[in-house]
Amino acid sequence: MFAERFEKKETIDLRKRYIGPSCKIFFSHDPIKIVRAKGQYMYDEKGQRYLDCINNVAHVGHCHPDVVKAGAQQMELLNTNSRFLHDNLVLYAQRLQATLPDKLGVCYFVNSGSEANDLALRLARQYTGHTDIITLENAYHGHVSSLIDISPYKFHQLSDAEQNQFVHVASSPDVYRGKYRADHPDPATAYADEVKDIISKAHKKGGKIAAFIAESLQSCGGQVIPPVGYFQQVAQHVRKAGGIFIADEVQVGFGRVGSHFWAFQLQGEDFVPDIVTMGKPIGNGHPMSCVVTTKEVAEAFMTSGMEYFNTFGGNPVSCAIGLAVLDVIEKEDLQGNALRVGQYLTSLLEKQKEKHLLIGDIRGRGLFVGVELVRDRLKITPATAEAQEVIYRLKEQHILLSADGPHRNVLKFKPPMCFTTEDAELVVEKIDVILTGISFFIVFVACVLLERPSRVSSTNQTKQTPQDIKQPVNKHKNRHRWHNSRIKGP
Amino acid sequence: MFAERFEKKETIDLRKRYIGPSCKIFFSHDPIKIVRAKGQYMYDEKGQRYLDCINNVAHVGHCHPDVVKAGAQQMELLNTNSRFLHDNLVLYAQRLQATLPDKLGVCYFVNSGSEANDLALRLARQYTGHTDIITLENAYHGHVSSLIDISPYKFHQLSDAEQNQFVHVASSPDVYRGKYRADHPDPATAYADEVKDIISKAHKKGGKIAAFIAESLQSCGGQVIPPVGYFQQVAQHVRKAGGIFIADEVQVGFGRVGSHFWAFQLQGEDFVPDIVTMGKPIGNGHPMSCVVTTKEVAEAFMTSGMEYFNTFGGNPVSCAIGLAVLDVIEKEDLQGNALRVGQYLTSLLEKQKEKHLLIGDIRGRGLFVGVELVRDRLKITPATAEAQEVIYRLKEQHILLSADGPHRNVLKFKPPMCFTTEDAELVVEKIDVILTGISFFIVFVACVLLERPSRVSSTNQTKQTPQDIKQPVNKHKNRHRWHNSRIKGP
Repeated sequence: MFAERFEKKETIDLRKRYIGPSCKIFFSHDPIKIVRAKGQYMYDEKGQRYLDCINNVAHVGHCHPDVVKAGAQQMELLNTNSRFLHDNLVLYAQRLQATLPDKLGVCYFVNSGSEANDLALRLARQYTGHTDIITLENAYHGHVSSLIDISPYKFHQLSDAEQNQFVHVASSPDVYRGKYRADHPDPATAYADEVKDIISKAHKKGGKIAAFIAESLQSCGGQVIPPVGYFQQVAQHVRKAGGIFIADEVQVGFGRVGSHFWAFQLQGEDFVPDIVTMGKPIGNGHPMSCVVTTKEVAEAFMTSGMEYFNTFGGNPVSCAIGLAVLDVIEKEDLQGNALRVGQYLTSLLEKQKEKHLLIGDIRGRGLFVGVELVRDRLKITPATAEAQEVIYRLKEQHILLSADGPHRNVLKFKPPMCFTTEDAELVVEKIDVILTGISFFIVFVACVLLERPSRVSSTNQTKQTPQDIKQPVNKHKNRHRWHNSRIKGP
Repeated sequence: MFAERFEKKETIDLRKRYIGPSCKIFFSHDPIKIVRAKGQYMYDEKGQRYLDCINNVAHVGHCHPDVVKAGAQQMELLNTNSRFLHDNLVLYAQRLQATLPDKLGVCYFVNSGSEANDLALRLARQYTGHTDIITLENAYHGHVSSLIDISPYKFHQLSDAEQNQFVHVASSPDVYRGKYRADHPDPATAYADEVKDIISKAHKKGGKIAAFIAESLQSCGGQVIPPVGYFQQVAQHVRKAGGIFIADEVQVGFGRVGSHFWAFQLQGEDFVPDIVTMGKPIGNGHPMSCVVTTKEVAEAFMTSGMEYFNTFGGNPVSCAIGLAVLDVIEKEDLQGNALRVGQYLTSLLEKQKEKHLLIGDIRGRGLFVGVELVRDRLKITPATAEAQEVIYRLKEQHILLSADGPHRNVLKFKPPMCFTTEDAELVVEKIDVILTGISFFIVFVACVLLERPSRVSSTNQTKQTPQDIKQPVNKHKNRHRWHNSRIKGP
């Protein structure tokens, strides 16, 4: 509608003037202005096409015509709150429930993953009568106050005094870089036992556990795939303590993992959370989300006597859009596509791992894939600057990818679900070229440094080894972008 | 799209099965199924038209074609997050800012009034370095955890132990029923002095005030219009204590008060809040909202180093819709209409007050009007059951109105802004008939009771006076609805 109202420079100036400076932009020194998008592609104001490998919100593809049509038609007809009866609400709840284990049968519709996770905490605290929450290291669960409290990804920036005393942090079940790794005989039990210990310690201090909350696969935390059996054991410990298990599917749900519709199902059929929260992909960009829980939890919440009213949550337009998204996933077999293309992408990346020492680990399920870059495979030194260089170089080639995790060294794939094998080939081919360049540069600098020690010391620089080189290409030019332009976050 | 997929009974059954029981429905014993809406009218599955006097979300009229078109066109083109540059975002921020005092120049776009108020608290706490919040008696600011803490409308149901120790509650500046009334020589100062006292007491206990938060006109709290000068004095006390002033315009903003675009402006030009939060009407039903603050507050928030990212907030579709709403308000002079029709409605209601003793107070600005029903004008005994009866009888006549306030005895008008003088006449005419009926019934019952004391006592009933009659019509039939079917809430 207002496709190009301002010149790019003016847009940037107006943004600086009117938008909160805490709201970051991708590639801040040279941001991208996107004016339209379709499928897995975005287009800038010059018509240049970008391949989108990061937008897990545009789940069934940017501007999918079926979703747009469903939204537009319902907007014309009715958009009101859920204090009136409407078929879209109940039909959508019924459809969503059908994707979940029977036990998870009661829905609350809200507007964002943050609202969903906040409500999950309220439900858990009301049901259990307890207060304490166990969360994972590097976890991100949303931006409202109660969720900053349980998001080490955010609150690690705060002082100890600012951190919430009712929140306990368990190690991330990361078998690549975490406390218990692939060589451990039983990492699932080892990580779950840590949760058990946290519960014991909390009890000794008089605390009572309301819930354990985790993304079914950690996303901002570095694309972490917990070992099978971990959730079952955690749930057992937590339930024994009177708490419940909240599976956050905001980033990873709706078929992304390929083999299953929900990522928690990767743990096996014997695992059913007490609450599942949904978000991002649920409306293909439309602001909506959902909390699903058991009858018992829902009834306990009601006994407080406090009505739950959400002005926009579950309105007929949101539900029409949600239904259309489910229809498209099914009609276009996007879950199957995620499985097939995800496997192909992973196999291509595995070949790159054989070729490039910088690639330390490839992990993923379906179209949720992480590539962890390291400078040394034994020491697993995070190759943070190299990961940022990859992201930046890909952007120059019109491919959008992000790097995340506590060291920002994990390349993070979570593209629209219509991503193709050709798209996978293209991005891997480009990564190959970039990694080859970075490796060549590192070897070149190492040779220069090792051969000319006198010159280095004569300029008062400390002698560098290849491991120390943090900014492999054009140090001056890149200084800004290492700090401000990284693509990360949910 | 799915206009009538299920029979009404089936919709009700599915709702009971799949939707959280804390999510209440209007008239639960005989709920309304709405399938379409236009302007100030809603239509049920049988095509029956209802006049909507309560929906302040459908601000420019249900399904306004300009808003629908703007949303649909942008949905087709692009809907992505604000990490890319987009003109809609900056254009909309610029347009919103132009409606506000210059000092309020920095926007954060979020998805709901709750997200907006939560962010306002985060901004206030970061800027001031303080924690304590002063809120008003009967206030409602949203449904996320941090806002239940500052919403006595909600938390009065909790035990003292469950209430947040950092929250202080000041008297509602209600000059009809509050501590200082219209006969007080200076209620503004009297109420503001109470805030000053709260600050002193908090300081003595080591607390530090981060913010005072209030709706510019209290809505769920009973359509309360604070006396002019109250906000100025409160702001002075709070700022002296290092805190800031948050004006919650979620229910009352966007021209509803008629004379001004924002309700806080009713206090005079010498009053400017530090933060303004917006919601409900901003997108005519589309889930969106906004926080606007000063450069100083925004910069302090940034210095925490914590990025603020909101997945859906400020997306191109939401901004296109927000722009269209502003355009329609202007093009159709809806603010002027609110002033004119609001004044006319108030004058019609004033005439009813002369006629019906049940009407204790008429108060309002523009199309935000409250009618407080009392059983005795001197004792101002709340006529709760009578107010519920009015709401129920109006529903039977296909008019939607609500009753709210701490005693649920305030009839609450907040219709779409295209409400006409004819609509005002219709609803007041119906209220007249209903109040006449109620008065007649009360007099009739009183006569029966006073004339036949022996019969009353012979059935073991206590003698009733007219004041005691809580359920004036058809006691058995209505028992359910007094408790479960009341229309209240934001």
